[in-house]
Amino acid sequence: MTTQVIVLNGGSSSGKSGIARCLQALLPDPWLALGTDTLVEAMPASLQADGGIEFAPDGEVIVGPAFRTLEAAWIEGIAAMARTGARVIVDEVFLGGADSQQRWRNALGDLPVLWVGVRCDGAVAAGREVARGDRIIGMAASQADVVHQGVAYDLEVDTAHAESIECARVIAARVG
Amino acid sequence: MTTQVIVLNGGSSSGKSGIARCLQALLPDPWLALGTDTLVEAMPASLQADGGIEFAPDGEVIVGPAFRTLEAAWIEGIAAMARTGARVIVDEVFLGGADSQQRWRNALGDLPVLWVGVRCDGAVAAGREVARGDRIIGMAASQADVVHQGVAYDLEVDTAHAESIECARVIAARVG
Amino acid sequence: MTTQVIVLNGGSSSGKSGIARCLQALLPDPWLALGTDTLVEAMPASLQADGGIEFAPDGEVIVGPAFRTLEAAWIEGIAAMARTGARVIVDEVFLGGADSQQRWRNALGDLPVLWVGVRCDGAVAAGREVARGDRIIGMAASQADVVHQGVAYDLEVDTAHAESIECARVIAARVG
Amino acid sequence: MTTQVIVLNGGSSSGKSGIARCLQALLPDPWLALGTDTLVEAMPASLQADGGIEFAPDGEVIVGPAFRTLEAAWIEGIAAMARTGARVIVDEVFLGGADSQQRWRNALGDLPVLWVGVRCDGAVAAGREVARGDRIIGMAASQADVVHQGVAYDLEVDTAHAESIECARVIAARVG
Repeated sequence: MTTQVIVLNGGSSSGKSGIARCLQALLPDPWLALGTDTLVEAMPASLQADGGIEFAPDGEVIVGPAFRTLEAAWIEGIAAMARTGARVIVDEVFLGGADSQQRWRNALGDLPVLWVGVRCDGAVAAGREVARGDRIIGMAASQADVVHQGVAYDLEVDTAHAESIECARVIAARVG
Repeated sequence: MTTQVIVLNGGSSSGKSGIARCLQALLPDPWLALGTDTLVEAMPASLQADGGIEFAPDGEVIVGPAFRTLEAAWIEGIAAMARTGARVIVDEVFLGGADSQQRWRNALGDLPVLWVGVRCDGAVAAGREVARGDRIIGMAASQADVVHQGVAYDLEVDTAHAESIECARVIAARVG
Repeated sequence: MTTQVIVLNGGSSSGKSGIARCLQALLPDPWLALGTDTLVEAMPASLQADGGIEFAPDGEVIVGPAFRTLEAAWIEGIAAMARTGARVIVDEVFLGGADSQQRWRNALGDLPVLWVGVRCDGAVAAGREVARGDRIIGMAASQADVVHQGVAYDLEVDTAHAESIECARVIAARVG
Repeated sequence: MTTQVIVLNGGSSSGKSGIARCLQALLPDPWLALGTDTLVEAMPASLQADGGIEFAPDGEVIVGPAFRTLEAAWIEGIAAMARTGARVIVDEVFLGGADSQQRWRNALGDLPVLWVGVRCDGAVAAGREVARGDRIIGMAASQADVVHQGVAYDLEVDTAHAESIECARVIAARVG
């Protein structure tokens, strides 16, 4: 069955976006890459302060109801893109673990999905967060494990032990 | 009837994105802002070379079939977001004029849409293109008129004669 | 006498960077464009919190001693670039008004400088700040007048009443 | 003797900028981080086409005389910043190998400099170039070795075998 959606789930600074770009370069068909960053950029600036995203002092992300409502519509929209024929790589942070995956499952229905866990040791991701220089410090460590709790994958990669392009090759080999 | 989608159509460097951000700040409800730039960023790098987007020496944009296929799915996806309850500002460049509008009409169906023409004199837009410094020179002049050919609007604004925030206030007053 | 340095001074969102890019496109010789934004990006992230830059709730910028020390060296460095033969456009925000200008005068010595005031009505600049979407709200209004206090110019332009490229043409005509 | 300048030399996508940001976070004093990317951004857009930078089909960078003139002034300027008291991390690509280093040596004179080679296997850097998605493909492979030819270092790090933050810790331990 032809894979229509690849969901990459991992914490901040785990390397998902790099893998997504490598997948776009490696896979023979054109794939759209969309993700949490795209959604956050599309939101009003005010949503990052009240009713939207808040950052606790340790980098933990707290998401409010207005954010959740737009996010639910966003997920349905991406499912509709895939149903209309687009191949889509989704670059996600399952802050709610298994509950987040269930939200995507409900929207994606019987579309053929490849679920990929992007692991990265919290300390390594925290170092990469410093190296990137544009992320709130603490997010990487705070999200490294929690985003994988109760999530079921077809495949897992570990960016602390392999380059993005190598991870992408392993994933690409599993794309039907 | 409550407006669910605002479509801003105008040439490159006509000021659509600035108006979209002002609308997000002015409107009481949270609106997503998505557009051609979001779609292009989501595409594989290779699509900008073959089968995707090409730039003629005068800045004219030529879009290939692989681009069109992903774009059609993108449009359906945004329509689905609106149908699921998200308010969406669409920041678009109707390279095909009336044909481009028809593609959006087909996808948006009976959703309440506010169609806004964002006009900007070609010479003024060309100057702003130089000032931005990150755009292919020639796009602004090449698109200034062609994107409006045969397009029907509820409302037109002109960024050569009014600030983005003023244009946004005029549009916001028409949002149901 | 051949102009070696063009100093553009104006508040946040007054349009200095756009004018700088237009000047680079209009002037026959190659000019470097460097400014406050370049300096801030070159600083450690921590300097934006302690001993560096702080933003008051109204967007006022408070600059600490560690920032001042690096800034003094930065100014000397740009003067040295000009003395070594580079033509340089400096895109500056004179938070200290006349005192800021004096710091630049001391460093630039007898280099031929064109001092340009970039005016923009505070309310207009505040609207553009919203349209840009990536600036701390309040900076534009807070800086619009204070940066010009006691500053002497060879030339002033007003971006509330002329496009960046037109302002750049007026300035270019005065470059020796 | 107190280190005043750290020069990080390595090919495109070897990880210099990430190491620079980690150094800024690790070192107790505030350091400016400036480099080739800063210089290129400061140049007029036109310099990337004629008399400036050209990219051969394999990603090789060819630099013209107008670029060289501005670069020479830039190097003198950074030396002046260091002499005025700023600690500076220079993030460089020695396209001319030993000749490039000599240009910097001439400008830096007797300032205490720590010369650091940032190695990264060409194939690994090429993979990271794909993952970054914003670089001309081919630069990483083309520059990986040539930038180190004949260059003398106080210290070398290898980002193919250590994280940026680990490389930065090794370098920081050598800063006087």
